[in-house]
Amino acid sequence: MKELKRKVLEANLALVREGLVFYTWGNASGIDRERGLVVIKPSGVPYDKMTEEDLVVLDMDGRVVEGKLRPSSDTPTHLALYKAFPQIGGIVHTHSTYATAWAQAGRDLPCLGTTHADYFHGPVPCTDNLTQEQLAGDYEWSVGEVIAGRFSGLDPVQTPAVLVRNHGPFTWGADPAEAAYHAKVLEEVAQMAFLTLQLNPSATCDPALEARHFFRKHGPGATYGQKK
Amino acid sequence: MKELKRKVLEANLALVREGLVFYTWGNASGIDRERGLVVIKPSGVPYDKMTEEDLVVLDMDGRVVEGKLRPSSDTPTHLALYKAFPQIGGIVHTHSTYATAWAQAGRDLPCLGTTHADYFHGPVPCTDNLTQEQLAGDYEWSVGEVIAGRFSGLDPVQTPAVLVRNHGPFTWGADPAEAAYHAKVLEEVAQMAFLTLQLNPSATCDPALEARHFFRKHGPGATYGQKK
Amino acid sequence: MKELKRKVLEANLALVREGLVFYTWGNASGIDRERGLVVIKPSGVPYDKMTEEDLVVLDMDGRVVEGKLRPSSDTPTHLALYKAFPQIGGIVHTHSTYATAWAQAGRDLPCLGTTHADYFHGPVPCTDNLTQEQLAGDYEWSVGEVIAGRFSGLDPVQTPAVLVRNHGPFTWGADPAEAAYHAKVLEEVAQMAFLTLQLNPSATCDPALEARHFFRKHGPGATYGQKK
Amino acid sequence: MKELKRKVLEANLALVREGLVFYTWGNASGIDRERGLVVIKPSGVPYDKMTEEDLVVLDMDGRVVEGKLRPSSDTPTHLALYKAFPQIGGIVHTHSTYATAWAQAGRDLPCLGTTHADYFHGPVPCTDNLTQEQLAGDYEWSVGEVIAGRFSGLDPVQTPAVLVRNHGPFTWGADPAEAAYHAKVLEEVAQMAFLTLQLNPSATCDPALEARHFFRKHGPGATYGQKK
Repeated sequence: MKELKRKVLEANLALVREGLVFYTWGNASGIDRERGLVVIKPSGVPYDKMTEEDLVVLDMDGRVVEGKLRPSSDTPTHLALYKAFPQIGGIVHTHSTYATAWAQAGRDLPCLGTTHADYFHGPVPCTDNLTQEQLAGDYEWSVGEVIAGRFSGLDPVQTPAVLVRNHGPFTWGADPAEAAYHAKVLEEVAQMAFLTLQLNPSATCDPALEARHFFRKHGPGATYGQKK
Repeated sequence: MKELKRKVLEANLALVREGLVFYTWGNASGIDRERGLVVIKPSGVPYDKMTEEDLVVLDMDGRVVEGKLRPSSDTPTHLALYKAFPQIGGIVHTHSTYATAWAQAGRDLPCLGTTHADYFHGPVPCTDNLTQEQLAGDYEWSVGEVIAGRFSGLDPVQTPAVLVRNHGPFTWGADPAEAAYHAKVLEEVAQMAFLTLQLNPSATCDPALEARHFFRKHGPGATYGQKK
Repeated sequence: MKELKRKVLEANLALVREGLVFYTWGNASGIDRERGLVVIKPSGVPYDKMTEEDLVVLDMDGRVVEGKLRPSSDTPTHLALYKAFPQIGGIVHTHSTYATAWAQAGRDLPCLGTTHADYFHGPVPCTDNLTQEQLAGDYEWSVGEVIAGRFSGLDPVQTPAVLVRNHGPFTWGADPAEAAYHAKVLEEVAQMAFLTLQLNPSATCDPALEARHFFRKHGPGATYGQKK
Repeated sequence: MKELKRKVLEANLALVREGLVFYTWGNASGIDRERGLVVIKPSGVPYDKMTEEDLVVLDMDGRVVEGKLRPSSDTPTHLALYKAFPQIGGIVHTHSTYATAWAQAGRDLPCLGTTHADYFHGPVPCTDNLTQEQLAGDYEWSVGEVIAGRFSGLDPVQTPAVLVRNHGPFTWGADPAEAAYHAKVLEEVAQMAFLTLQLNPSATCDPALEARHFFRKHGPGATYGQKK
């Protein structure tokens, strides 16, 4: 778990360094699929004092198996997403400014250009409201279920982000670092889309251009970057 | 008073560090309730040269009991708030950009999501105009009275912030550090709400979601953070 | 002139430090009224390499009396303002983002709150277009004349700033440092006013509140700051 | 090639330092016209680890003549521009926030003031959509062709920038440093124009003022800066 803890700590610190998180407003986690264990940030601990020892290790049912601190209050959401999306290895939650504004506006983030299309295939969806029952019950778990439900028919690997209505974004990826990377990309494209629609409320993007860019970087035909 | 002075100095410096204050555009104070003494920033002294010795100690009637410099010109507002809100231990005033824009617009800051609801229960109210008599008389004291009047029926602990119309925000908390923390939170949620309403002028938030988040962090049922 | 050169260099560097100037997009000058000499930034020299020796000293007719470099291309504007406004000791020109946007919009910057009223008494005026003759002739001198003409009936000490239409702001003060200080204040209140009008297009400010704040800091009845 | 490599590396690093590029979202190149060789950033390599050895040297037909890494995926666009615009010596591509928003909005960036006119003579044009054939074929080369086609009747030296629709800006100049400089200027004037049109949707600029400023800095009659 030492290596995973190091990655989770680094992803949490990246959120602060990239200006996506103030105070305790975010969390990053990572999963060891073979052992079925999740490493996550503790609840309400300032980032500048956090060490690998403060991180909490849980099994998939939320039982703490290592660590003295309470896990992030959003832990059930992370667990629900790891169960619903077996392809992913890391999750990040922030309240980054522009992505949160789209979530508060209750709008899907449309793809308006290649910056978005290089990372997200199609719009980044915004969830529906939770029901009164979900709010009154196991709230954080329900957030994860609502996200998973919103992805019915969508591929979470091709769209590694969601806007939780009136709350903020969750992003994910192959590992915690990629989840944090996607959190930054999402914030940037959320700002660009905000500005674009102020300049042209009916702006759109050709789906063929979107596909050209997404598949230039992703999938078997990718040509971007260095050969691996 | 040494410990309180240290806390008040640190809160003043935090305002600059967080980008909430330029030049001399803000002030933080703290109160020792047992002794009935308030420590506040001196008037017009740049933050980067301020020391604990520059801070001014006053009694609740505004008489200086320690310090060689004039207290902040906003001192009567602080004193009026300490009298009106006996639960609070620290007060901060800034001209932070987005919170001031809402104050200049004369609009209550609506709760549009969980970032707001985690700290402020309901809208952050904006005061009415002062009357011509209040402007011509003991102006800074009247600002405090107008704030206190606006909180008729509101709990200042559950809504630790106000927008003074055409002026800017005041925030408060259990101590000077929490007041400064709330000043940063207010600026962030003021920006998020600004952006949200540009994206969706009729955006709202489910009151049940607001309550879920506020009481997750505050009051006897709180589950957020580490056990104390 | 050594002391004035030091002040002019420091004011030029302050513009970069405060984020008001990129590259060579601005200039600061100061005047020695007794000797009738003006010290100004050289044209097109990057700030990070500028020394006191690079500064240019001119008489009021624009003749260089000291320095090897060409003076700022905006020098005639500075000279025209020093002649028109005998009370001022320093001038700053920038292309700071929000102030320039107001200038490009051709709108006076209205006073919408106390942040503005603490420094500028009434709106910051925007000039008219230059005529085709002014553009074809001694352009930079005409800019100064147009500013001076716009201040007919206004007190340049109470309103130490102007927006030159489709160009950008000039600010001034008792010395170069105050002129640079006003350039920062102007940029901040220009941003606040921009945001305010997006939130409430009909926002205004009570003139009595404006006067209360302006005269709290300026003139014989001022109470702000420390006694001098 | 050593000197050109140094310049290309420095231009790439300048993009990050000026806040125009996150991660790998941009590229700078330079050309040796005598030898017909282009130096460009490798594809997908983080800026903070890039060295001169990582840069790729190609001939004008895109054949790699030096370097072990794949060149930037945008290389064919750079080559097409070097062929179409024989006067230029360096090219930069970014996804800078405001310039990209204008590109996504599909709008030419209008000249609204002297900040723009000091560098770009007339609007910065936005290209049309690519055809389905162009998207399906040699996409990156077609982007260069579409840019060149958009400049029919325009002088690329007087307008050293373009907005590629739904993508982002390309800028160029006499060398890589000037191309990077223009990328920063473009981002600043794109933000100013955005703000200006929010304040005054019908804002315009007198063409005579634009010409006065452009030719003050460019061409045989230039008076700005120091004599060379």
